[in-house]
Amino acid sequence: MSGDPDSGLLSPVRAGTPAEASTGDEAWLRAMLDAEAALARAQARLGTVPPEAADAITAAAGSARIDVVELARGSRATANPVVGLVKALTSAVGGSAAEYVHRGSTSQDIFDTAMMLVADRTLRPLAADLDATAEALAELARTHRDTIMAGRTLTAHAVPTTFGLKAAGWRQLVLDAAVRIRRLLDGGLPVSLGGAAGTLAAYVEYARLAEGAGMGQAGRGGAGGGGLEVGTVDQPHAAPSPAAPAGDYAERLVDAFAEETGLAVPVLPWHSLRTPVADLAGALAFTAGALGKLAVDVATLTRTELGEVVEPAADGRGGSSAMPHKRNPVLATLIRSAALQVPVLAAGVTQSMLTEDERSAGVWHAEWQLVRECLRLTGGAAHTAVELARGLSAQPERMAANLASTHGLIVSERLSAVLAPLLGKTKAKELLGAASQRAVREDRPLREVLDELPAVTAVLTPAALDALLDPAGYTGAAGELVDRALEGAWEPGSKKL
Amino acid sequence: MSGDPDSGLLSPVRAGTPAEASTGDEAWLRAMLDAEAALARAQARLGTVPPEAADAITAAAGSARIDVVELARGSRATANPVVGLVKALTSAVGGSAAEYVHRGSTSQDIFDTAMMLVADRTLRPLAADLDATAEALAELARTHRDTIMAGRTLTAHAVPTTFGLKAAGWRQLVLDAAVRIRRLLDGGLPVSLGGAAGTLAAYVEYARLAEGAGMGQAGRGGAGGGGLEVGTVDQPHAAPSPAAPAGDYAERLVDAFAEETGLAVPVLPWHSLRTPVADLAGALAFTAGALGKLAVDVATLTRTELGEVVEPAADGRGGSSAMPHKRNPVLATLIRSAALQVPVLAAGVTQSMLTEDERSAGVWHAEWQLVRECLRLTGGAAHTAVELARGLSAQPERMAANLASTHGLIVSERLSAVLAPLLGKTKAKELLGAASQRAVREDRPLREVLDELPAVTAVLTPAALDALLDPAGYTGAAGELVDRALEGAWEPGSKKL
Amino acid sequence: MSGDPDSGLLSPVRAGTPAEASTGDEAWLRAMLDAEAALARAQARLGTVPPEAADAITAAAGSARIDVVELARGSRATANPVVGLVKALTSAVGGSAAEYVHRGSTSQDIFDTAMMLVADRTLRPLAADLDATAEALAELARTHRDTIMAGRTLTAHAVPTTFGLKAAGWRQLVLDAAVRIRRLLDGGLPVSLGGAAGTLAAYVEYARLAEGAGMGQAGRGGAGGGGLEVGTVDQPHAAPSPAAPAGDYAERLVDAFAEETGLAVPVLPWHSLRTPVADLAGALAFTAGALGKLAVDVATLTRTELGEVVEPAADGRGGSSAMPHKRNPVLATLIRSAALQVPVLAAGVTQSMLTEDERSAGVWHAEWQLVRECLRLTGGAAHTAVELARGLSAQPERMAANLASTHGLIVSERLSAVLAPLLGKTKAKELLGAASQRAVREDRPLREVLDELPAVTAVLTPAALDALLDPAGYTGAAGELVDRALEGAWEPGSKKL
Amino acid sequence: MSGDPDSGLLSPVRAGTPAEASTGDEAWLRAMLDAEAALARAQARLGTVPPEAADAITAAAGSARIDVVELARGSRATANPVVGLVKALTSAVGGSAAEYVHRGSTSQDIFDTAMMLVADRTLRPLAADLDATAEALAELARTHRDTIMAGRTLTAHAVPTTFGLKAAGWRQLVLDAAVRIRRLLDGGLPVSLGGAAGTLAAYVEYARLAEGAGMGQAGRGGAGGGGLEVGTVDQPHAAPSPAAPAGDYAERLVDAFAEETGLAVPVLPWHSLRTPVADLAGALAFTAGALGKLAVDVATLTRTELGEVVEPAADGRGGSSAMPHKRNPVLATLIRSAALQVPVLAAGVTQSMLTEDERSAGVWHAEWQLVRECLRLTGGAAHTAVELARGLSAQPERMAANLASTHGLIVSERLSAVLAPLLGKTKAKELLGAASQRAVREDRPLREVLDELPAVTAVLTPAALDALLDPAGYTGAAGELVDRALEGAWEPGSKKL
Repeated sequence: MSGDPDSGLLSPVRAGTPAEASTGDEAWLRAMLDAEAALARAQARLGTVPPEAADAITAAAGSARIDVVELARGSRATANPVVGLVKALTSAVGGSAAEYVHRGSTSQDIFDTAMMLVADRTLRPLAADLDATAEALAELARTHRDTIMAGRTLTAHAVPTTFGLKAAGWRQLVLDAAVRIRRLLDGGLPVSLGGAAGTLAAYVEYARLAEGAGMGQAGRGGAGGGGLEVGTVDQPHAAPSPAAPAGDYAERLVDAFAEETGLAVPVLPWHSLRTPVADLAGALAFTAGALGKLAVDVATLTRTELGEVVEPAADGRGGSSAMPHKRNPVLATLIRSAALQVPVLAAGVTQSMLTEDERSAGVWHAEWQLVRECLRLTGGAAHTAVELARGLSAQPERMAANLASTHGLIVSERLSAVLAPLLGKTKAKELLGAASQRAVREDRPLREVLDELPAVTAVLTPAALDALLDPAGYTGAAGELVDRALEGAWEPGSKKL
Repeated sequence: MSGDPDSGLLSPVRAGTPAEASTGDEAWLRAMLDAEAALARAQARLGTVPPEAADAITAAAGSARIDVVELARGSRATANPVVGLVKALTSAVGGSAAEYVHRGSTSQDIFDTAMMLVADRTLRPLAADLDATAEALAELARTHRDTIMAGRTLTAHAVPTTFGLKAAGWRQLVLDAAVRIRRLLDGGLPVSLGGAAGTLAAYVEYARLAEGAGMGQAGRGGAGGGGLEVGTVDQPHAAPSPAAPAGDYAERLVDAFAEETGLAVPVLPWHSLRTPVADLAGALAFTAGALGKLAVDVATLTRTELGEVVEPAADGRGGSSAMPHKRNPVLATLIRSAALQVPVLAAGVTQSMLTEDERSAGVWHAEWQLVRECLRLTGGAAHTAVELARGLSAQPERMAANLASTHGLIVSERLSAVLAPLLGKTKAKELLGAASQRAVREDRPLREVLDELPAVTAVLTPAALDALLDPAGYTGAAGELVDRALEGAWEPGSKKL
Repeated sequence: MSGDPDSGLLSPVRAGTPAEASTGDEAWLRAMLDAEAALARAQARLGTVPPEAADAITAAAGSARIDVVELARGSRATANPVVGLVKALTSAVGGSAAEYVHRGSTSQDIFDTAMMLVADRTLRPLAADLDATAEALAELARTHRDTIMAGRTLTAHAVPTTFGLKAAGWRQLVLDAAVRIRRLLDGGLPVSLGGAAGTLAAYVEYARLAEGAGMGQAGRGGAGGGGLEVGTVDQPHAAPSPAAPAGDYAERLVDAFAEETGLAVPVLPWHSLRTPVADLAGALAFTAGALGKLAVDVATLTRTELGEVVEPAADGRGGSSAMPHKRNPVLATLIRSAALQVPVLAAGVTQSMLTEDERSAGVWHAEWQLVRECLRLTGGAAHTAVELARGLSAQPERMAANLASTHGLIVSERLSAVLAPLLGKTKAKELLGAASQRAVREDRPLREVLDELPAVTAVLTPAALDALLDPAGYTGAAGELVDRALEGAWEPGSKKL
Repeated sequence: MSGDPDSGLLSPVRAGTPAEASTGDEAWLRAMLDAEAALARAQARLGTVPPEAADAITAAAGSARIDVVELARGSRATANPVVGLVKALTSAVGGSAAEYVHRGSTSQDIFDTAMMLVADRTLRPLAADLDATAEALAELARTHRDTIMAGRTLTAHAVPTTFGLKAAGWRQLVLDAAVRIRRLLDGGLPVSLGGAAGTLAAYVEYARLAEGAGMGQAGRGGAGGGGLEVGTVDQPHAAPSPAAPAGDYAERLVDAFAEETGLAVPVLPWHSLRTPVADLAGALAFTAGALGKLAVDVATLTRTELGEVVEPAADGRGGSSAMPHKRNPVLATLIRSAALQVPVLAAGVTQSMLTEDERSAGVWHAEWQLVRECLRLTGGAAHTAVELARGLSAQPERMAANLASTHGLIVSERLSAVLAPLLGKTKAKELLGAASQRAVREDRPLREVLDELPAVTAVLTPAALDALLDPAGYTGAAGELVDRALEGAWEPGSKKL
């Protein structure tokens, strides 16, 4: 039974991307098996599972052929796939090692640890894609540091800006996202280990039993004695020596599990304290939003009437079978499609912090698919953004033409500032307002209209007017802002934001 | 290339359910092929595609082996899977019929029509599942019309109610949901047909060309002449006779397409007027919410300390490998997991109404996976609810025991009402407040405390007190409310809500 | 204590609109008082409250001066404002009528009924605003039935369309919204009446007591005796005669309450069956989305480079103090700001269907402010839309200029359709693709390029080319679609969607 | 015109709390005035505004009586309240200083800076409330380190845990929230300063003009000459000396503005790079979720049948007028009502990262009210949580009674672990499963049933059984986990999560 593929047919933004591969059912199954194997090895390091058993479990976890479709359907009986997984793995291990599979554990320990492994494996390439995107945007910003274009607010030309500043802004958002993703990779993705209700009781119990059975030496430096006496177990819970209280064993087990998986150590078992999952969703929503800003701007600037940027062309991308002239902003479209979805999906995850008891009946379960979608949509968007940023082509001529299309009105703010002290604020404003209206109404350059106004020509020479009406002279600190952003003078992590 | 399966591993609520099968990639591919075939047949009915070509397209659409994974990956180049689908279908059709594939059409016509087909195919069994759930809940309500239990508000016992009223309420919500789903099935799922920008221009153009080539008769009753003259086309747009304006052809084409697909006829092309999709998401969110209320209540009543209902047991469902005593409310858990997700997913769809132009760069694309998830989560939840409702077992003894556990406090409201006219409102309230506190503090029945109060015994005989303190005597209109709800005296669709 | 005003400072879309006034704290307080008064009158009609008491309560509810800030702060002690309201109203009523205030009732009955009253009072003007908007859009559609403009998909020119079709589409969405709002006004806003836990027990109890006290005649046609005997109440629950069971009284009370408030009669008490609230939120989200589409399109078409529509000017609206040339699409901006918020707010309301028990500890309470925001944002948006639709000015010259700016490429789809049978599909496509690229590259009209191609001139006369390249000849069924939509041939409510 | 108050009538969780006061219309107005004053002072420090003018503006901003309702209504004409505010402030300043009001500025600079000021003023007490809550929870955890209670999963008893561990978990979440809030307070709330389109052009222009007018010395250390010549301005943009490029001035202005407001310095103007706002919403959603977990657990444990915690009583809180026995978990209800809302509201803010151009037409505007609601709901919830945590009373007897109510089943996991090596895993499991079922069926202690099983009594002495069946012996590492969490051995900020 191979099942219907999850191919991204409805989600082209992630079809065939690394994030798709690292979040699919097979990847999740792999991560759960990795978690089971790591747990056995961690217990072996502490002497509560025989090393050979841990080896056997690791081997079986690596090679077991488990039918994920059957597993999924079986999970309806228990509301999670781990119960079936344990059964299948136990059977794959076979022999005496089989009884050490999932020892002392609970479904959530395995599932949540697997979720963190999947996150880790998805976020690493995602972070690299963010870096690559930022680098390409930096190159754009550098190249177009002084390429003038219209700054637009509420859809209308406002004052000039530069394409370099625009690209530097996109890059800044991408860097902000990368910081948030790296924060997760640097300690924000912990193992889950709590046992049935977050006390690690069964792990501890099995350790005591192993101690009693003389198995604890390796991990404990020969704590010896005090364990259960097989046959006449009369002091089952008197076992632990003062040197090895439950908490000590628990701490060492969590540490070992973290080392075996490469994940972080949590403060407390987090079955119902969902900080790691909420943080993950939050960082992904932010990242999707950051990439979404880039996409929205690219789509806007691509409009037929603007034409200020062109997406990279490749293998007939963006083509339309019916309309030979079209070149659609396909990459921006894909990224935006993800960026619109992730924030609402992530909200569902954040809400899942409201989870009752030591494990919820349903709230935990609501997280899973939402987290996966957040991961693969954002991962797909980041992968797509690399291509977009690397191939995005600015069109300075179109930018200049658009800038000129309002015949000087785009610098009306500047004229207003300059004329105010010369004419008085009120008079300057009235005069400019009227002149602007007239320029628009008569479709004439503002300069022409101003030249006819003695009040203006009395205080500004033609050369001054030329200078004042040149958009290139009114880009403020745009150039230096680009420099500074690129130099990283204001590094993420420094006191400044 | 078969790809990673989409097996519901992270979404057991829909694993293996009809909604999973009807919404998967293969089902979506099927629906797109069905839409292409139906379009060709519709055009054939109007004489603009040769009948043999429509037959050939229908046959190829039925039997074509299209690799959905390849299709999905290819869709990254165009931001939708239809371009690749048309190529694959065209090649599968072959011969002279091939040129009639997707004639005059646009990706969105096919995709959106397919989405409505998928919706239709998912909603029909979903509606049947709602009916079955409602019927089972009706049976529960009937059986337990007078089974008393504690009514609870803000987590605390309030006044008595009945399990019958509770079940009748769940049923009412399910019926409300069914009404909303049926509203969609009865005209709310239209074909999409607009051509490149919603004007149906290319459909009309091909009709004109076919007219000119003498092909229009079948569908038009011999409108005759006026068409294009091959070789010296000098009046290409003079073609349509007054009897057959563009709009007339367009209307007939939409009608024919609707008949061929079994979908409804829209008022206008809806490429960027997303009423059908928003309505779909809205009805699914409502349905998920309705089922979620059932799930939340079942989970609550299942609590170890309450034990008032028990989920149906089957094949070790709800079991825990580690804790032999457990019987988890697995079905409620699954349903709740869906009910928590669908409203936020649906919000993403509703937001997609804000779609710019004749087709958005990204907003349309954001809908697809969200709609699918809404469909399959809600479909899975409804399927699960049938099993839950049919097997749910009420525990009247536990209900009675819980009701009695507060020793009469649950009818304090009634005592308050009865004593007020006898003692004066203020005095009655003070007296009862103090008596209740004392009963709680001393863990004694309220009756005992009241018996010691002369102010009470002076106005109420022991028999009256017995009667007043019997929870069964204070269920208000619960029984009749159940009757009425079940009789459907207040039918959905009647003037009353 | 007057408190900080809720003036819409952060929500200009509703500042000073009817929806703001009808949803503010004072309006909500008014609705709660109205609900209390209507309840007393309903009980009076059934003879369980003396008519004079109902009159006194109605009078006091009408004139009571209740400090809403104090009430709000007091509500922290009970998690809802009704407890404090009852206290304040009781004190305002004074005398013997005071004891009939809130008789048999519960906070949720009053609060939810008030919410429905507020909804009703907000939706009526909202529906009128939708009508007015639709009418103005119809006028635009009629006037510009044949005003050609570029149809745009994925931000690029696709094929021609008309502004009339665009306006007709906006109107259709607004009509769809109006249908959904009217569905609520026609029976979707019910009274809430359930008593402490949805059984109406205390209402029934007070009726029995009144019966016993000889007060029931008016409403019951002289049911007579059997009531409580004051002083020796020994059969407190034997009272109701067969002709007047609890359910009968309950039904009559709900009917009377509905008549007194003008609201609908629900099937069952809906304290925890949130159909009315979910429906309300759903309809508002839809409406906001529908208006949002209009806003997004207007904002897009207003772009400096497009300039195809201009918002109505009034009292310096849209002006910028610094940039005298600007005229911002302020109305579209306001509407869009609402449309972006309402769907997520509404999702929170839909999720509140997952409410445990007979009344939730927190889920019910989460609805209130969300519902208010949905109401006032959507109401404000509709009010704003009237002004936008009435004053929106299309700019046919700009539309024509933009259409012409691609030098004929916008009809490449048509040429492709016409040339395919003449040249063969593949050759036609190649030829057109190359010609289009060349036209773009050399910035020349497509016509010029085609004129140089013998393959084209051999099959199409210059006149034919002229005709084919005229955008006005390629608007498909646009005109007839407008006619049909305006004629209402496809009426909402008819079988067609 | 005082307007309708915004009193929290529908939002008791924040009624009368500090967060309500610091986010109301008046507070927002105050923050905008503070931003205008700080801007004037910053410009004065750099010599581009006369010090007396800055003083006058600061004074007027402090004392101006601006009608916030009028301002709000006026903002409909410009889509934001700053235009009206500038007019009102200018008029309040009067005289020659008036022309320096809002010099070179844009509405978004003032509004966004004000939003950050409001956030700062709300987050500081919020963080203190989180600390106080955490401290109270630490006390609870310490006190109840070894208070045993049932650990619950999927609503059913699982294995024992301790109330101390539960409280430590709540505290951990609150600390996690505090870390995220403090991260904002430590550099995450920047001033907004970009001018009309993010280039600071007008600020720079006015600086040049001031330079020319001989006003730049104070701030620039005497850069001298090169400025505009009044009367014959012929080199308006040649002014800046090499030592004082636009970017240098811009940087110094941003620094000065940050110092004057106490906010952080951003990397780039963030008009359309919404990192600060998205971060704010994200941290608030997390915080609300963290508090929500506490609330959900408290509500659950308060249930009549559980009774394991009791909320603090005060001034009749939690009372019900009709039901004298009730004591509702009002504080948990309030907190949960906020926690359910904030994540969806925050999603709306995150989505607003998709904001087009240099300033969006509507997306920016959609943030405002959402941000306010996130702030005041979360602030209100935190304030409420202090009271809840300080007064929450654990009920160890009820915990023990509930634990005992399943007659030993709660330790079945442990028995299973112990018996497996003694009897074989399969046999042990079967035997325990059957014994558990029988204990439940016959309502007898598990111990009794086990005592009758020779297979058990052969390997476990009565004393061993006693020990194994004692829940207190099976709390795993709960105690040490509490110690460790409280000791802060795993400090936030350390490598461990």
